[in-house]
Amino acid sequence: MSHMNFLAWMEAIQRRSETALENLLPDANIAPARLHEAMRYAVLGGGKRIRPLLVHAAGGLVGAAPERLDKVACAVELIHAYSLVHDDLPCMDNDVLRRGKPTVHVEYDDATALLVGDSLQALAFQSLSEHPLTEDPSEQLSMITQLARASGSRGMAGGQAIDLAAVGKQLSREELEYMHIHKTGALIRASVLLGAACGARLDSDRLERLDHYGKLVGLLFQVVDDILDTQSDTATLGKTAGKDADNNKPTYVTLLGMTEARALAESLLADAREALTPFGPQAARLDELATFIVHRRF
Amino acid sequence: MSHMNFLAWMEAIQRRSETALENLLPDANIAPARLHEAMRYAVLGGGKRIRPLLVHAAGGLVGAAPERLDKVACAVELIHAYSLVHDDLPCMDNDVLRRGKPTVHVEYDDATALLVGDSLQALAFQSLSEHPLTEDPSEQLSMITQLARASGSRGMAGGQAIDLAAVGKQLSREELEYMHIHKTGALIRASVLLGAACGARLDSDRLERLDHYGKLVGLLFQVVDDILDTQSDTATLGKTAGKDADNNKPTYVTLLGMTEARALAESLLADAREALTPFGPQAARLDELATFIVHRRF
Repeated sequence: MSHMNFLAWMEAIQRRSETALENLLPDANIAPARLHEAMRYAVLGGGKRIRPLLVHAAGGLVGAAPERLDKVACAVELIHAYSLVHDDLPCMDNDVLRRGKPTVHVEYDDATALLVGDSLQALAFQSLSEHPLTEDPSEQLSMITQLARASGSRGMAGGQAIDLAAVGKQLSREELEYMHIHKTGALIRASVLLGAACGARLDSDRLERLDHYGKLVGLLFQVVDDILDTQSDTATLGKTAGKDADNNKPTYVTLLGMTEARALAESLLADAREALTPFGPQAARLDELATFIVHRRF
Repeated sequence: MSHMNFLAWMEAIQRRSETALENLLPDANIAPARLHEAMRYAVLGGGKRIRPLLVHAAGGLVGAAPERLDKVACAVELIHAYSLVHDDLPCMDNDVLRRGKPTVHVEYDDATALLVGDSLQALAFQSLSEHPLTEDPSEQLSMITQLARASGSRGMAGGQAIDLAAVGKQLSREELEYMHIHKTGALIRASVLLGAACGARLDSDRLERLDHYGKLVGLLFQVVDDILDTQSDTATLGKTAGKDADNNKPTYVTLLGMTEARALAESLLADAREALTPFGPQAARLDELATFIVHRRF
């Protein structure tokens, strides 16, 4: 798919990721039907699929088979989806709108939303283990460890805990960055590395550069999210706009101001693109994807 | 440890499982400290460790290295612990007492309990992937798939959903059994099979018999749980007694009456012991463990 322009490539990956998720999620008529229906509601038909895009872009860099990348894309997207379902619960952010639809606990109920999240996490690990994804199966075991670390208490879930503790507090830029590196950064970084793990092995210098790219894109994503949260309306975002400010949560915009936050995004983008230079034109999708993340409107 | 009597063996496995869990769980002083403290609170210093006992008993049958079985024992016990934390939340069973202590959301808060459960699930998959557990790593991948299936929407979490839907309903014995096979049975069955997967390969007939044993023990465990829930007091159980009846949930005792429920337990025990006969004296621990499960007081 290297001949396509970026938007066509993006749409193709989004479409195939949707199909892969549809096939992986249990049918809504399989018992327990209400749970399965709610799982499909939580995952399908929405979302930018940024993590699957990163998986495929990084996998393309090392010639990984797209069918393998689909399994990885499902795994990271399911972890992301479960975190949104739990994050929206009344005891967390208590949000009613997600991807332009009522959140899972609003459409169903709190208990179902809890079990949806729990089940999606299990399904993510199923997706990463039930088909061969690497020539050497012990490398696939390392991929599973990586996803577990990135989503657990020292990764994404830990970031949520730091976020909760930060409500109403004045954070320094370092503290804000520390939170985001965990809350959204860890899974974005894992998406890049897991995609790259499915193809030809990279030398340690290139692997480090790719990891650096992932780290920068994770931060970039969050800075832009904060900018959009301030600038856009709820209809455009498909989720409640201005929520972080209303919840008295620190953001890059409240901390740095809009002009500085935008400058930070541009500088992170330049660094992310710079990290890709040794890969040459093969890294075009990763480069374009970083650029897209900065210039997206929602 | 085959020379020990059963109670000494049980205590030895409980002790080594506690140590393994202590070492696997992040220290309470590592950030995010409150989350890590709550994770340790949820897991350590309590519980009968039935699933780790099943892992070690089944592993002993095939000569599996105890150090490998510790990793498997941690994985199944962490899945079990996370399910208790989430099950006790106000939107589920809303319980305040567990293992003789306030439940996690009472001691901490609902959001922390949610993240504790999420993090424990991730840690379970980390434990099952980060060290070699089988000669052929692709068999370890199958173990991970098994645990994911046993804990997801078609296993434990699905059983919770069926349980929720059953509140206030009249269930047939078949429906009650179907619920328990998922809610508690799937993980107990997986504990047996995952322990056995760490040693010499079993032929398909023996594997089937072992699986049958696991299925029977899962049911047995639940029947006895229902009997104890009716007979014992809260202090002895370490959790709220009579809860299921109060919540208008169907149990084996409400469905069959106490005499019939006890007869069912004895008959399931006989079947479980019968399933083990081809293994001879090597299956002594599994045999004793099933007997212990029937005759326990809490």
